[in-house]
Amino acid sequence: MIQSRVQITVRYAETDQMGFVYHGNYLPWFEVARTHMLKEQGIPYRQLEKEGFFLPVLEVGLRYHKPAFYDDELIVVSTMRERPSIRIHIEYEVLRGDELLVSGHTRHAFIDRAGRPVRPPASFSERMAVLFAT
Amino acid sequence: MIQSRVQITVRYAETDQMGFVYHGNYLPWFEVARTHMLKEQGIPYRQLEKEGFFLPVLEVGLRYHKPAFYDDELIVVSTMRERPSIRIHIEYEVLRGDELLVSGHTRHAFIDRAGRPVRPPASFSERMAVLFAT
Amino acid sequence: MIQSRVQITVRYAETDQMGFVYHGNYLPWFEVARTHMLKEQGIPYRQLEKEGFFLPVLEVGLRYHKPAFYDDELIVVSTMRERPSIRIHIEYEVLRGDELLVSGHTRHAFIDRAGRPVRPPASFSERMAVLFAT
Amino acid sequence: MIQSRVQITVRYAETDQMGFVYHGNYLPWFEVARTHMLKEQGIPYRQLEKEGFFLPVLEVGLRYHKPAFYDDELIVVSTMRERPSIRIHIEYEVLRGDELLVSGHTRHAFIDRAGRPVRPPASFSERMAVLFAT
Repeated sequence: MIQSRVQITVRYAETDQMGFVYHGNYLPWFEVARTHMLKEQGIPYRQLEKEGFFLPVLEVGLRYHKPAFYDDELIVVSTMRERPSIRIHIEYEVLRGDELLVSGHTRHAFIDRAGRPVRPPASFSERMAVLFAT
Repeated sequence: MIQSRVQITVRYAETDQMGFVYHGNYLPWFEVARTHMLKEQGIPYRQLEKEGFFLPVLEVGLRYHKPAFYDDELIVVSTMRERPSIRIHIEYEVLRGDELLVSGHTRHAFIDRAGRPVRPPASFSERMAVLFAT
Repeated sequence: MIQSRVQITVRYAETDQMGFVYHGNYLPWFEVARTHMLKEQGIPYRQLEKEGFFLPVLEVGLRYHKPAFYDDELIVVSTMRERPSIRIHIEYEVLRGDELLVSGHTRHAFIDRAGRPVRPPASFSERMAVLFAT
Repeated sequence: MIQSRVQITVRYAETDQMGFVYHGNYLPWFEVARTHMLKEQGIPYRQLEKEGFFLPVLEVGLRYHKPAFYDDELIVVSTMRERPSIRIHIEYEVLRGDELLVSGHTRHAFIDRAGRPVRPPASFSERMAVLFAT
């Protein structure tokens, strides 16, 4: 299992007239959390794209338990429970202290520059083999 | 069953460096579709908020089948299959001509200005009773 | 002079907790207006990019006179007063009926795929020569 | 003169298909910088709003010198050169190391909950008097 934590401060731009964070604005935070997790594991996504590998989102799901407010300091925890194969599944929790505000997941697969599905780059697969070795 | 269709032209701002629409930018389109559906049914959401009723999002799910590109002219179809009770469930399909690009759903419940769960306003419930009468 | 008008309905996502449209969200509307103006003139920007010409923004300025609200139906008027040379200057007005809500401008120049400044494509220059002929 | 620096890491969501940051996405960063500056000076904006004072944007201007890329670590420097009176003027520079990417300014004035122009709250004026005392 890989787990990573990243800190987010809510921007005014991310609120809406209901007075809290617009539900669509959690997806960029999930993306910040993924970027952070991959970088921590030594496989920065920026580098993957330079090598011609892209990781689009195939599926997302989110459940909103409590609102987040402007200027709140939040933690987004991202978790990869299983060694990724063709599909990569990541789970997320958005926390304000002990409170769980939002939980969700994303599913991904690698494509090449032309948009065709491809196997993960060797650097990625090898690192995952190490991380998920028992 | 209530169904509504709204036209969306993809904005440059909605793309990302992968060359197509960022996955998080479909949620505002779903919201445009909901706004349109409620207005068509004679219960504009703007009016509901003026009366003190808010309809936050409790849950969303999206599956991305094919990318949407800048300047594409898309249709977002929104569907309410069941008469809403405390919970409101809406389904969406994003289409480019005959192609299904994205499918998804949102789930909602009414709250009042203080954020407490409330029953739907009478105007809403009565209209839904008519629309879903057999 | 070239002038174009496009209709925008304010999205919930575009508001913030002040209760009206977030000031940053007018820039995508200006972009929608530019896209519309170029398409009306027979030189769709999408086509320019396919030919390897990109039109990044070099400068913007906006003045906010009155707020725009969720679900407002607005008109964005874009105007090109002078025949573009190396630089392209466009002015914008956001209107709700007769009320002027926001005015602004953007300045652009063409670059190629590698990011180097280039002269406008022939198709663009020729069309502009016709449009601005006296 | 008040000056503040805040760190921003570019999100994938903030890029567009030109391959770098969409020009409209600098305005939320300016807002992050303002929030940070006011908090550093002991007058958090969140608190001002709780007391019924809002600080909408009246005017912005931005000049784009060089592009910012996904995952870049940037610094946004915000500067208030003159003691604010009815109007508040703030300048910004977005830097990647020594490189100046974007420069800009925003102009603000206080309004109350009903949207009427008001004088700044006493806590704000007093703090500014101290900060700009010679």
